[in-house]
Amino acid sequence: MTRPISRFPVPAIDELPEDVRARILAVQEKAGFVPNVFLVLAHRPDEFRAFFAYHDALMEKEGGLTKAEREMIVVATSGANQCQYCVVAHGAILRVRAKDPRVADQVAVNYRKADITARQKALLDFAMKVSRHSEEVGDADLEAMRAAGFSDDDIWDAGAIAALFALSNRMANLTNMRPNDEFYLLGRVAPTGTRSPK
Amino acid sequence: MTRPISRFPVPAIDELPEDVRARILAVQEKAGFVPNVFLVLAHRPDEFRAFFAYHDALMEKEGGLTKAEREMIVVATSGANQCQYCVVAHGAILRVRAKDPRVADQVAVNYRKADITARQKALLDFAMKVSRHSEEVGDADLEAMRAAGFSDDDIWDAGAIAALFALSNRMANLTNMRPNDEFYLLGRVAPTGTRSPK
Amino acid sequence: MTRPISRFPVPAIDELPEDVRARILAVQEKAGFVPNVFLVLAHRPDEFRAFFAYHDALMEKEGGLTKAEREMIVVATSGANQCQYCVVAHGAILRVRAKDPRVADQVAVNYRKADITARQKALLDFAMKVSRHSEEVGDADLEAMRAAGFSDDDIWDAGAIAALFALSNRMANLTNMRPNDEFYLLGRVAPTGTRSPK
Amino acid sequence: MTRPISRFPVPAIDELPEDVRARILAVQEKAGFVPNVFLVLAHRPDEFRAFFAYHDALMEKEGGLTKAEREMIVVATSGANQCQYCVVAHGAILRVRAKDPRVADQVAVNYRKADITARQKALLDFAMKVSRHSEEVGDADLEAMRAAGFSDDDIWDAGAIAALFALSNRMANLTNMRPNDEFYLLGRVAPTGTRSPK
Amino acid sequence: MTRPISRFPVPAIDELPEDVRARILAVQEKAGFVPNVFLVLAHRPDEFRAFFAYHDALMEKEGGLTKAEREMIVVATSGANQCQYCVVAHGAILRVRAKDPRVADQVAVNYRKADITARQKALLDFAMKVSRHSEEVGDADLEAMRAAGFSDDDIWDAGAIAALFALSNRMANLTNMRPNDEFYLLGRVAPTGTRSPK
Amino acid sequence: MTRPISRFPVPAIDELPEDVRARILAVQEKAGFVPNVFLVLAHRPDEFRAFFAYHDALMEKEGGLTKAEREMIVVATSGANQCQYCVVAHGAILRVRAKDPRVADQVAVNYRKADITARQKALLDFAMKVSRHSEEVGDADLEAMRAAGFSDDDIWDAGAIAALFALSNRMANLTNMRPNDEFYLLGRVAPTGTRSPK
Repeated sequence: MTRPISRFPVPAIDELPEDVRARILAVQEKAGFVPNVFLVLAHRPDEFRAFFAYHDALMEKEGGLTKAEREMIVVATSGANQCQYCVVAHGAILRVRAKDPRVADQVAVNYRKADITARQKALLDFAMKVSRHSEEVGDADLEAMRAAGFSDDDIWDAGAIAALFALSNRMANLTNMRPNDEFYLLGRVAPTGTRSPK
Repeated sequence: MTRPISRFPVPAIDELPEDVRARILAVQEKAGFVPNVFLVLAHRPDEFRAFFAYHDALMEKEGGLTKAEREMIVVATSGANQCQYCVVAHGAILRVRAKDPRVADQVAVNYRKADITARQKALLDFAMKVSRHSEEVGDADLEAMRAAGFSDDDIWDAGAIAALFALSNRMANLTNMRPNDEFYLLGRVAPTGTRSPK
Repeated sequence: MTRPISRFPVPAIDELPEDVRARILAVQEKAGFVPNVFLVLAHRPDEFRAFFAYHDALMEKEGGLTKAEREMIVVATSGANQCQYCVVAHGAILRVRAKDPRVADQVAVNYRKADITARQKALLDFAMKVSRHSEEVGDADLEAMRAAGFSDDDIWDAGAIAALFALSNRMANLTNMRPNDEFYLLGRVAPTGTRSPK
Repeated sequence: MTRPISRFPVPAIDELPEDVRARILAVQEKAGFVPNVFLVLAHRPDEFRAFFAYHDALMEKEGGLTKAEREMIVVATSGANQCQYCVVAHGAILRVRAKDPRVADQVAVNYRKADITARQKALLDFAMKVSRHSEEVGDADLEAMRAAGFSDDDIWDAGAIAALFALSNRMANLTNMRPNDEFYLLGRVAPTGTRSPK
Repeated sequence: MTRPISRFPVPAIDELPEDVRARILAVQEKAGFVPNVFLVLAHRPDEFRAFFAYHDALMEKEGGLTKAEREMIVVATSGANQCQYCVVAHGAILRVRAKDPRVADQVAVNYRKADITARQKALLDFAMKVSRHSEEVGDADLEAMRAAGFSDDDIWDAGAIAALFALSNRMANLTNMRPNDEFYLLGRVAPTGTRSPK
Repeated sequence: MTRPISRFPVPAIDELPEDVRARILAVQEKAGFVPNVFLVLAHRPDEFRAFFAYHDALMEKEGGLTKAEREMIVVATSGANQCQYCVVAHGAILRVRAKDPRVADQVAVNYRKADITARQKALLDFAMKVSRHSEEVGDADLEAMRAAGFSDDDIWDAGAIAALFALSNRMANLTNMRPNDEFYLLGRVAPTGTRSPK
């Protein structure tokens, strides 16, 4: 009953272009495993490079949104788009980033009822509108974001993350991308003796 | 940021009618905690009694559907109905019943991509139709269930579980029912020394 | 062209458990016929008992909503859910309870245009949201109910009735429940000399 | 609580152009009352003339569809479009035309469960698709109609009636058109001594 | 790959009733070609007469809405209804009437982003609601129109045009009506030496 | 009434990073003007680079889909997502690539009725499903593509283009991206003496 990680061919890591391979080995080094999105998208190295460049430009840079808030956008919109890979994988990252074992499951099912701040609810209202009904996004939506304390750069970030994962959700559903088993438990239990010193 | 377990008054256990209190204490004895649905619905003892009588009639009896399969129906339809309490609480029960730490998250997001059997996919196709578009349920849907090996009693069970949780999802969303913290981790990690002997 | 009252087996009344049989005979005594929902659900006595216990707890008790208003909720939400049995049967009950031969047809098609009070429109706005989009029910919806004069107990009642008939509509659509012929005319014409004595 | 028959001005009959007045008096003569659609649309005599010319061209002419079948299309599509006037008024006409006191209520709520022939179900499947998703109407839909025994002229009739009442439903909802009280009971009880001789 | 102008028989012009033929020849004289809607609907002369009478009553008469604004309603609602004939043909007319080569394409795709006035946006908000959700049209929608400066006669016009093209879009989709090649370029380029004198 | 090309700041070309500026000047050299998407996205150079890298990887490479077919996917899905910029700009490119002045308008409104091949209709059926309901994409959809003659690489291309423009449509709607005036006429009229020699 365990399905493969992609409907399409998955390349062997040592046959990949050097830069793609290096990126994959770096993430493996850091995470302890290779998230399947890297292997599945590596079937197309040029698209792989573009996707992760886009991802890093939005998810890794400094800015007004915390990294946990960016992951909240990913998890909420991916839940609405029924993308199993993105909910499971980014749910794990959200738990780690937010240092909260519950928020990801809450946001994935119904962000309106999650234990998040009013500011974060406004953020997810906006991101969900971009994700699901971008044709209706108007000045009033931007005003609501500004009223919640977001800058115009934050607004672009929020909308652009929702847009990038509109793409990502569709690629995951197209390829039937399977979440790694490791993601399900990540961030749910504090590893003994690791986080406490800080 | 932690919201209360209900928008409505929650009775103290020792002020409840005897039978309601006994039921709650019994579940606490068995589970180690009181799932919030018992406390929230106890605000209305008569409805409490009817709800759990209905629940037990469908979820606890013998029958052609395994208990894990019944929980799959609950999790899949509750995900579609964006019911946070039901997804989190019954997701935990599904993990325990199926002895599978991943299936609940898969089914909650997109059952079409879950690691389940073809028979179970047919079951969830049917239950989802009852849950979301029951007005269109026709003979062809029952034939598809029969073709997948289900008896007419199984079909009633599947449809009735979807119907009961259509009610339950709405009550949870109406009351803003909060899942207990305990549910999030339940069934994700094997308790030391329990499962190995078998 | 006359279809049976259920897709599933319908038990003979004299083969039913005593309490189920008694309930059915009592309703027959009172109404002059046995509404098909009793016969169809009697296929499963435990579910029968739970359903009617739930029904009575919400529809028969005292409270801030009139009995006609409760039936309005049933008719409006059942119309939206395209449940033929519930619209026809509860439409009849609504006509009788409201002593109004037209309101049921109005509410079933489009409650926004029915001859009801502003308070009742607010009630149906709320009940319809619970029925169709409970995931979006938020504090503002409860505030709107309070502003229309409803207590929190009334709000629970309204939402719970919408929730119960979310179940009921799905059971009727699942079983292909057929409305009794008697319902169509009930409450449309004042029976000569019957109601006046009271 | 009784609302007016239109949101817009309703002309006095004796101020209307002669042909419009004649048409209204003729229908009054025949039906015993003036259906409100005549009064409401008479606010705009040119549109009145065009509407009833269109109506008569489709509903009164000879053809492969019986008059009852044409009314079924009106009732089913008007139910889906939540048009109170059209469901109540044409529901009455359908009862009269079909000599059946129940079919209109059945078709208005959920035609899939009505006591109609397989041919009529195919007809309503087609008409509903034209009414609700005409952008998806394709050759396969016409083939299904032909397979059910309909000619291409019948197909045009069915689609055109659905199209005309797409207009009519919107005009009724725009004007807040109120059904006459007379319609609610029409065709529900056999007038004494009329039908028996046959 | 060029499909016929209709799924149904298209009559030869010289076999048509005199008045239908005269109308067609008149439009040909004026436009330089016969728009296919005339030929396709001429298959049914009575419906042809009613349709164009309705059309002229709303689109050709004097009134508070400019002719360009009426065509905007047609183009916006036909875009939402995915009616290829109406978008292409009335897009051309809109370009000519508005003397603007771009507004039709803008309005067809997303009127919220078109280069139109705030008044025109309010007009299209209203017309789109009549076209797509007329069951929800309420007093607040009429108030919004009045606040934007429209009279009650303008409101009727706007709603009635949306209603007429709800019919027209369905007839075009039913018949698979093909836009004439001439429409695509009409109004996009200023004919040499024509418009300058003014 | 002419709105700006973006809701967000638009950088001056000579202040941009060298590679971004070079790309913009190259497209200006080739097209004769700078499509606004380049200016609007240049507000964020890293996202600009990633977006156009992704774009080129899918739209410029060799492969089983013709360049016109790729643009058809863009136009059809952007129409469904109501993205004005993408429909107008890529509609122009589609006209040029397909050497057909009409196909873009047809596909934008309703691809089911466009003058395209059966193979192209299958392609758009698939791309539209990825764009609008990717959660339901299953093996049967891939089989339908293979049956229409597409390779698995073509299937990835089709799905990935739909996914990329799911992102692009959302960015255009987020930024309120305005199409350049030049696009509206491009590809509609054959430039005198240019195409004939071939």
